Amino acid sequence: MKKVGIIMGSDSDLPIVQKAVKELRAFGIPFEVHVYSAHRTPEAARDFAVGARERGFGVIIAAAGMAAHLAGAIAANTTLPVIGIPCSGGRVDGIDALLSTVQMPSGIPVATVAIDGGANAALLAAQILAVSEEEIARKLAEKRAADARAVLEKDAGIAGRL
Amino acid sequence: MKKVGIIMGSDSDLPIVQKAVKELRAFGIPFEVHVYSAHRTPEAARDFAVGARERGFGVIIAAAGMAAHLAGAIAANTTLPVIGIPCSGGRVDGIDALLSTVQMPSGIPVATVAIDGGANAALLAAQILAVSEEEIARKLAEKRAADARAVLEKDAGIAGRL
Amino acid sequence: MKKVGIIMGSDSDLPIVQKAVKELRAFGIPFEVHVYSAHRTPEAARDFAVGARERGFGVIIAAAGMAAHLAGAIAANTTLPVIGIPCSGGRVDGIDALLSTVQMPSGIPVATVAIDGGANAALLAAQILAVSEEEIARKLAEKRAADARAVLEKDAGIAGRL
Amino acid sequence: MKKVGIIMGSDSDLPIVQKAVKELRAFGIPFEVHVYSAHRTPEAARDFAVGARERGFGVIIAAAGMAAHLAGAIAANTTLPVIGIPCSGGRVDGIDALLSTVQMPSGIPVATVAIDGGANAALLAAQILAVSEEEIARKLAEKRAADARAVLEKDAGIAGRL
Amino acid sequence: MKKVGIIMGSDSDLPIVQKAVKELRAFGIPFEVHVYSAHRTPEAARDFAVGARERGFGVIIAAAGMAAHLAGAIAANTTLPVIGIPCSGGRVDGIDALLSTVQMPSGIPVATVAIDGGANAALLAAQILAVSEEEIARKLAEKRAADARAVLEKDAGIAGRL
Amino acid sequence: MKKVGIIMGSDSDLPIVQKAVKELRAFGIPFEVHVYSAHRTPEAARDFAVGARERGFGVIIAAAGMAAHLAGAIAANTTLPVIGIPCSGGRVDGIDALLSTVQMPSGIPVATVAIDGGANAALLAAQILAVSEEEIARKLAEKRAADARAVLEKDAGIAGRL
Amino acid sequence: MKKVGIIMGSDSDLPIVQKAVKELRAFGIPFEVHVYSAHRTPEAARDFAVGARERGFGVIIAAAGMAAHLAGAIAANTTLPVIGIPCSGGRVDGIDALLSTVQMPSGIPVATVAIDGGANAALLAAQILAVSEEEIARKLAEKRAADARAVLEKDAGIAGRL
Amino acid sequence: MKKVGIIMGSDSDLPIVQKAVKELRAFGIPFEVHVYSAHRTPEAARDFAVGARERGFGVIIAAAGMAAHLAGAIAANTTLPVIGIPCSGGRVDGIDALLSTVQMPSGIPVATVAIDGGANAALLAAQILAVSEEEIARKLAEKRAADARAVLEKDAGIAGRL
Repeated sequence: MKKVGIIMGSDSDLPIVQKAVKELRAFGIPFEVHVYSAHRTPEAARDFAVGARERGFGVIIAAAGMAAHLAGAIAANTTLPVIGIPCSGGRVDGIDALLSTVQMPSGIPVATVAIDGGANAALLAAQILAVSEEEIARKLAEKRAADARAVLEKDAGIAGRL
Repeated sequence: MKKVGIIMGSDSDLPIVQKAVKELRAFGIPFEVHVYSAHRTPEAARDFAVGARERGFGVIIAAAGMAAHLAGAIAANTTLPVIGIPCSGGRVDGIDALLSTVQMPSGIPVATVAIDGGANAALLAAQILAVSEEEIARKLAEKRAADARAVLEKDAGIAGRL
Repeated sequence: MKKVGIIMGSDSDLPIVQKAVKELRAFGIPFEVHVYSAHRTPEAARDFAVGARERGFGVIIAAAGMAAHLAGAIAANTTLPVIGIPCSGGRVDGIDALLSTVQMPSGIPVATVAIDGGANAALLAAQILAVSEEEIARKLAEKRAADARAVLEKDAGIAGRL
Repeated sequence: MKKVGIIMGSDSDLPIVQKAVKELRAFGIPFEVHVYSAHRTPEAARDFAVGARERGFGVIIAAAGMAAHLAGAIAANTTLPVIGIPCSGGRVDGIDALLSTVQMPSGIPVATVAIDGGANAALLAAQILAVSEEEIARKLAEKRAADARAVLEKDAGIAGRL
Repeated sequence: MKKVGIIMGSDSDLPIVQKAVKELRAFGIPFEVHVYSAHRTPEAARDFAVGARERGFGVIIAAAGMAAHLAGAIAANTTLPVIGIPCSGGRVDGIDALLSTVQMPSGIPVATVAIDGGANAALLAAQILAVSEEEIARKLAEKRAADARAVLEKDAGIAGRL
Repeated sequence: MKKVGIIMGSDSDLPIVQKAVKELRAFGIPFEVHVYSAHRTPEAARDFAVGARERGFGVIIAAAGMAAHLAGAIAANTTLPVIGIPCSGGRVDGIDALLSTVQMPSGIPVATVAIDGGANAALLAAQILAVSEEEIARKLAEKRAADARAVLEKDAGIAGRL
Repeated sequence: MKKVGIIMGSDSDLPIVQKAVKELRAFGIPFEVHVYSAHRTPEAARDFAVGARERGFGVIIAAAGMAAHLAGAIAANTTLPVIGIPCSGGRVDGIDALLSTVQMPSGIPVATVAIDGGANAALLAAQILAVSEEEIARKLAEKRAADARAVLEKDAGIAGRL
Repeated sequence: MKKVGIIMGSDSDLPIVQKAVKELRAFGIPFEVHVYSAHRTPEAARDFAVGARERGFGVIIAAAGMAAHLAGAIAANTTLPVIGIPCSGGRVDGIDALLSTVQMPSGIPVATVAIDGGANAALLAAQILAVSEEEIARKLAEKRAADARAVLEKDAGIAGRL
């Protein structure tokens, strides 16, 4: 099975990345986590991206805040699908990171998820791998059903909490 | 090869969808285009999403403006990867569509591209299919190289235009 | 008397819904509260909306955050008036939920109240029912008068607090 | 049948109000249109609001731009449901009017629709009247079905336009 | 000497109003403080505004949050200069109150100060009265000089704090 | 009678200043217009402000765009009331000028009017002078009445325009 | 004398770069212009940055729009001062480019100028070179004086244009 | 070696200035820190700027919040490069300070860094001095390498923290 690469621009983004790691583990999807900064270690970020397809990666997740260039810098150096997580934490509540991640120019897409959306980044990676991996598709359907049941259980108990 | 479904919420979004169609044609990726509104034809949108995996789709692209629910509504009814294009055109220049598309709750990701980013939506779809389709991966690399050459040609001629 | 349906997208929105419940109880308006997610339980949300008029509902209130599709998803499946409460809590302070709720396309209105405006959603529901229910109209006028008196009492005592 | 009052803050808002008028005529709902400014003619706006219920109005629609106080000023003087249309046209593309209309304090709700959403304001008024008027409810259902058919006709013809 | 009227929309705005009161006391300017809501007590707000010039007021300060209509509602009922203080506290950090206060239509100006700018509202009131009151002008100049000295004292000590 | 000084940061702001000039002429208020840039001619702007009270000015209006420092720079050098007009025209539709003008620090207020609000700046200046000039107060009341009549005439004719 | 490098992300940014070129020519500062995209030609952009100091550059100006990574990508690969010009043209009027350019993480500054601020980017480059080049400092002072004179000439003629 | 001047508009900005001081000390660059307000002590700010080049300064850093005029006011009175730090702390999270600092009119650039970006302001000052000071350039390269090593050390240990 293809691996998922997770790159964070700073280890201060670790709590958001942990949410992605938790989902990938639940799906049994192999992954590799790195701290590479688009600005402080541009070569390391670039080398990872350039070699990713050959090293067996299927998707790369990049998490960064402020002028969040990381996902775009990775995407510029691979044709693998790159998922961007805009991280809040700066002074403008993540809108800077969101616009820096999503507003990519034509030719180099970044699949952007919600601000601080670590879990969804992992689920999107699973969905991408599931295009050709039946087993992951089956697990995604199971998780969907479980999530729905959890909501309906909340619904069943809500009258007692009013 | 898996097909790409393209849904637009209104035929006023057609110019943006055309940019996606053009890219998919260039890649030789089969696709199907529909006009389904999340709000005016919720059943049609839902039915397409529910049956999409079985009907051979690998990725779905959804383009909508304003309170752009279409991508989320599709994503709620399939575990295929769903790409959202926030369309401008309303009064707040597409920021409403961007936030409505990208800020999805945990469990239901939408892979969001730039406002009006029709071409990138198609390229992202191609990247997703290319995870298991070598041929598309090869074409993506070729397009990257061609795009780079086009920039460098502009660079070569820029001095004469100053 | 027609009932008011209150749907929240997640039970984390309960504190905001409680403000609506408190007002409805004060008015003696019957209501029913549910936790249905537009994205995790789209069928449950849809079924509630489709059957609401027949089941005796007169108004539906929907509370959700982030890319808040719930009110729009309900409104797409009923012609009852739907009141949307944009809930804050995400990273962009409720502006995402506000735009996702209010910027509905032509044909499917959502009556949007202020961010986290649980009490006003209930009062608006009461105003809607009061169009044909004299008794509620009378109570609304009484509450208005009481609210005014409360302000004027604050005014009477303000000099002593300076 | 209860009437709908439509107030615009300036006759420059007439094109938006016309969209509401067109819908109300299609539904056969009686209405009355006025130009009253919350700031230039506060008495006229107030008097209209104070007497509206007695004069047979069931809903009031208020359209205004910039620091759009009109809907709130009407709502402060009646317990009828008040629908606010934030009008663009100022320099900040209607976000000023949207926030001025929707962010009402607890006690005085305004049912806010999208920026420049004249048609939806009328449809929401129709939905409110339809709570007790079967005939309007029937027409709303018919319009919904017609709107859906229009979308599906666009869908049927879209392949030929690509 | 003309008096300054200070109106707050809710007594939750008192801390901001206190900053204005403190400045007016320092200048020896007579003032009167009220809690009048533009929406819950529109008559009281209107009556104060209508009678203000005759009752000896020279300037009115209005402090309100969210869809802050208070300053505009006062300004619509007097030709005295009205100073608006947009109060934060709602979910969108005072931008809603700022736009609701400052974006007044032609004909009815509101002299808007910074978000939560209680002290500056009072100083602006003093400046306005000082146009015809030499004594206040003299005190304003003294305060300016004192403020400058305070900054320069900070400057003198800053090296020791690095 | 005290004069009104009008300073614009660039003659590209002239159309907005013309609206102020027109109002002042209608009121018979003497005025003086200058082009002084806070950044390109800081000395000229400063000298005007420093000498304004002595030269018979009662109010200063300052119109500027982008990082609009002009009103603040004037206000820093006089204790006369300073009215700021944030001018649009830059790329962010005047929000930059609005925030740069209104968000003044404690001690140095600027009475800010709406983006491009030339007419209201003049009316506010007239209101300020009218605190001690009965004649202007009388004219302000007349203008108010005329403005109200104009709205009511529009109201009288609106039915025929639907 | 050190050279100024000007990189634009796309030749659609040429009109903004021309404003910089015009200023540099007026100052007699040698410069070199390139079209290098941070995303389409990351190697070319990187190579330019890495070799710039050795090749005699003293400052680099980078102009880009949308998720404007170019200035940051250049800055990550050189310790020369890098000036970023956020270019508008995308759907969100340059705020996306501004935040993507200015919100750089600690360690890698980008000297950001106004949206579309081509002339100021060149002037800032001149100021930087002038720290050690007396001749440029002299020309900067001359230009300042000429700019001031131009404003004062406008001022002298403004009365005739009212 | 040329000195760096650091001006803060208020000593409440000291924590941000301290980050700049720390970097300058690490580089051995001489500096001088002042508290001068553009509005409360315009003369002091102006005098510092006017005399700065002659007194041996090579760069000036200005830190201010809200309607942050300080950097622009300094820049208007010197042709030295001026670096602006927009400080958060007001109610709109620093966006007001950012726009007030960066959106300078043509002719008077301010080199703007990120909101609260004290360290980067100092590094940019060092880069500017390093254009003609080999020693600083060498230290900048060393710091870059050290920063990169710190990231790679985090990367080496990240697997153990998941």
